[in-house]
Amino acid sequence: MRLLFIGFGTVAQGLSELLLEKRVELKRKYGFDWEVTGIADTLKGSAHNSGGLDLEEILAMAAAGRSISDYADGGCDWDAPTMIARADADAMLEVTYTDIKTGQPATDHIRAALARGLHVTTTNKGPLALFSNELIDLAARNGVQFLYEGTVMAGTPLLNLVRETLAGSAVSEMKGILNGTTNYILTRMEDGMDYEAALKQAQDLGYAEAVPDADVLGWDALAKVTILANTVFGAALSPADTPCTGITEITSAQIAAAAADGKRYKLIGRVWRDGEKVRASVAPQLMDLSHPLAGVGGATNAMTVTTDTLGDVTVVGPGAGRRETGFALLNDLLTITSRS
Amino acid sequence: MRLLFIGFGTVAQGLSELLLEKRVELKRKYGFDWEVTGIADTLKGSAHNSGGLDLEEILAMAAAGRSISDYADGGCDWDAPTMIARADADAMLEVTYTDIKTGQPATDHIRAALARGLHVTTTNKGPLALFSNELIDLAARNGVQFLYEGTVMAGTPLLNLVRETLAGSAVSEMKGILNGTTNYILTRMEDGMDYEAALKQAQDLGYAEAVPDADVLGWDALAKVTILANTVFGAALSPADTPCTGITEITSAQIAAAAADGKRYKLIGRVWRDGEKVRASVAPQLMDLSHPLAGVGGATNAMTVTTDTLGDVTVVGPGAGRRETGFALLNDLLTITSRS
Repeated sequence: MRLLFIGFGTVAQGLSELLLEKRVELKRKYGFDWEVTGIADTLKGSAHNSGGLDLEEILAMAAAGRSISDYADGGCDWDAPTMIARADADAMLEVTYTDIKTGQPATDHIRAALARGLHVTTTNKGPLALFSNELIDLAARNGVQFLYEGTVMAGTPLLNLVRETLAGSAVSEMKGILNGTTNYILTRMEDGMDYEAALKQAQDLGYAEAVPDADVLGWDALAKVTILANTVFGAALSPADTPCTGITEITSAQIAAAAADGKRYKLIGRVWRDGEKVRASVAPQLMDLSHPLAGVGGATNAMTVTTDTLGDVTVVGPGAGRRETGFALLNDLLTITSRS
Repeated sequence: MRLLFIGFGTVAQGLSELLLEKRVELKRKYGFDWEVTGIADTLKGSAHNSGGLDLEEILAMAAAGRSISDYADGGCDWDAPTMIARADADAMLEVTYTDIKTGQPATDHIRAALARGLHVTTTNKGPLALFSNELIDLAARNGVQFLYEGTVMAGTPLLNLVRETLAGSAVSEMKGILNGTTNYILTRMEDGMDYEAALKQAQDLGYAEAVPDADVLGWDALAKVTILANTVFGAALSPADTPCTGITEITSAQIAAAAADGKRYKLIGRVWRDGEKVRASVAPQLMDLSHPLAGVGGATNAMTVTTDTLGDVTVVGPGAGRRETGFALLNDLLTITSRS
């Protein structure tokens, strides 16, 4: 499979490391043999070679701060649209930055790749939160695979859990902790920190951005909830359809009062069927300590899936990270291989 | 797919209900179309019809305590070996009783079916704990599928979680709560009950047998741990290779002391790599309350899988139940369909 990276930041590099590390095993165990033929990154430069790029060398160049456009055997100045139009490739990895408001430029990258007949896998929440139904239809019309495991809970099984291991079940509700930053802040506040200090610590650890709005106001969880509503529940919601409250109004006093009552605040993203309708919400909720989600501390994510066959099944795992998110792309590539 | 039931107890009936309930959806969504052509149960009787049995009527006969051998359109007196040898079928469901010491008669049923070229799915722990490698080889040599999701944690995704959604990961350790009965007893003891009263309640609820040894001495968890060691870690362990301690030595005083220390006893089944070796154990362990397994109460099961790509991923769900275990068989049948 000839791979094309659009974006070559931490997630792309995490995947690249896994691909190199596991090369022999992936071929032996899953019949997955790969070459990276193209890379285009606005900041890091571009390269293309139909015979395959030396991924190890390109990782070293990126680590050293050298432009990929200086790569000896195919460095070039193609921008992303040019690369998508011209590259010799079978599958595109869309791993540019997430813009939750417009979904761009990632959505146009995915449209162009699917229309050209490339399989696509992405970890980018923007296109999925805003245009999932259009993109899924476009992939089907072009007879290619479109997978996006890493958009929710990184590589922790969730979309593929529902698709593969819960196949044959009807899902009536999903609810969980979809944002690690806010869960980390709430956990520190339970330890006695106030909100400002906990946010500062989350920023120092690299969990929260300098402008933390997307996390603390619930927008990141909202994007993920919208993806679940549309891709698992078959809805056609846009983020604006769902009420969304973040954690900025929760006080240390409220958290202490909850603890005294045997409860704990969690920022819960929820999707559920309400008759024929699909509804969603993002809001802090008081969870009883006996609930599996209540015990999930720190930056970890978790989701409880309610099914007609098993009742509740809960999965707990990382929701971010270079290697953890890169793995989501790898698992998607193996799914594409097994279906091809 | 023409299905053959060997055994027609609660799990087989749970699967039958799911098959009937989901008939249209299974065909539309997964291309899975089924007929039950044969049933053989030592106590409930036998029936065979190449054109398909009326499963609804047979469920009603079983519910009314009538022998399936009296079924008008194919009732017969074939025993299990005869049925396996003669039935018109594509796949066998082995759902007779579990004998953890001999694995029989289930193992011979599976050997005969695989040798005849039938796909096999089972929830029976005996054959898998004792003869998994032999049976997996036999299936491969005969070009048929052999799946056994329901042998560990009922239909809660575990073997398929590792196989499908964690594909591309290396698993270094699995540890969890694999026996619902003992977890229920420990949970009640934390509420202040003594061991005898908690066991009595578990028996009244149908969780524990009249002779509870297989659960409380850890043998059931030992069988499951052996299955994981051999099928996920590629070992060749027999149950006797693994140290096994149950919960009968844990006192109410120890549980109270643990609680005062912010800890909780759990009966933990564990498999891990130790250099080139695979090791396993079953024993009560003191878990810190912050560990995801500590919060798992009642008859629920849970497993933490340690991987090289994601670190720890924990799945929590039912470990028993008519419908919950029947679903494991259904999911296996969908896997067979998707690979055929």
